[in-house]
Amino acid sequence: MKPIDAFSRLTQALKVLPNVGPKSAQRMAYQLLQHKRDGAEELLAALQQALLQVRHCQQCNTFCEGDLCHVCADETRAQTRLMIVHMPADVASMETANCHDGLYFVLMGQVNPAQGMDLSHIALEKLVARLQNSAVEEIIIATNFTAEGDATAYVLAELFKNLPYRVSRLARGMPLGGELEYVDAGTLAQAVYERRQLK
Amino acid sequence: MKPIDAFSRLTQALKVLPNVGPKSAQRMAYQLLQHKRDGAEELLAALQQALLQVRHCQQCNTFCEGDLCHVCADETRAQTRLMIVHMPADVASMETANCHDGLYFVLMGQVNPAQGMDLSHIALEKLVARLQNSAVEEIIIATNFTAEGDATAYVLAELFKNLPYRVSRLARGMPLGGELEYVDAGTLAQAVYERRQLK
Ligand SMILES: [Zn+2]
Ligand SMILES: [Zn+2]
Repeated sequence: MKPIDAFSRLTQALKVLPNVGPKSAQRMAYQLLQHKRDGAEELLAALQQALLQVRHCQQCNTFCEGDLCHVCADETRAQTRLMIVHMPADVASMETANCHDGLYFVLMGQVNPAQGMDLSHIALEKLVARLQNSAVEEIIIATNFTAEGDATAYVLAELFKNLPYRVSRLARGMPLGGELEYVDAGTLAQAVYERRQLK
Repeated sequence: MKPIDAFSRLTQALKVLPNVGPKSAQRMAYQLLQHKRDGAEELLAALQQALLQVRHCQQCNTFCEGDLCHVCADETRAQTRLMIVHMPADVASMETANCHDGLYFVLMGQVNPAQGMDLSHIALEKLVARLQNSAVEEIIIATNFTAEGDATAYVLAELFKNLPYRVSRLARGMPLGGELEYVDAGTLAQAVYERRQLK
């Protein structure tokens, strides 16, 4: 059997990207090799560096290259207030909104209620370890207002039920079905300000 | 100034892909590093191999790894009939339709009439060189039925006007605005069968 050619292999490999089917993968491979050689070389170098260097912050679990991310390393942040989000992009959105002076924890996933509330996609064990012997007093659940975000918030609220934290969730100032990543800074700030006490 | 971190660099680099803006680039980088490490490693290897090995067929200009692609290397193909297409994906579509027994020439681009009919994106010089001292008698223009495809067909028809080839274009059996890549095999076969004589 003839081995797969380099162009087909690249097309195949590009399908790992979210929302990329066979046709767009083929277009991407064509663009990279025909019109964007420089960009393709940079993508190669960036992917190589990222795969080698990107790890998880030991404290908040976001992507970072050292042991601690720059937020966790910043001692001026309020150590008593912890905001829990889905993804690194949510931290970036929140920092842009400039309305949270505490720390973060990044779950790196969501609970999918349509798939039996499987908890393996969220870093619950790391979160529990993070809270042990910590200065945290208040927890702000900042998951998305989607089915997955609601399910994740539910799981978190259950987890904290008998623990001595004040727990709140972002106010529903965000549009229904909205995702943190896509909301403007003002709406985000409003949602943090009006956060709803859960217990 | 702090150098750009590896995650941001990857996000930035992914924007080289067609139709990928800042937000989807961020999602892609997150997926690659968090949930698809194996796929990301394979993408890295595939991109590296493709950038190293993929060149252009010396005869038809499509992507290939040797001097000649497998179509050009096949001596049973009709050497007198040359079909001109935009992209390698068009060759693949045409081969699947199994309605052309001749050879191909791949322009690797289109003429954009909205940008002053710039010819630098299509491999006209290679095409002229290909035809010199060749056995080609008949040329089938198989460009898309879009503004760019029509403009490219016009440029080609002008080029061949005083040259001793029979020249035709695919029949307009394809839906208006349709692109070769997305049309089913039967429609393609019909369009080849009813190709319209241009001179
Ligand atoms: Zn951190
Ligand atoms: Zn060839």
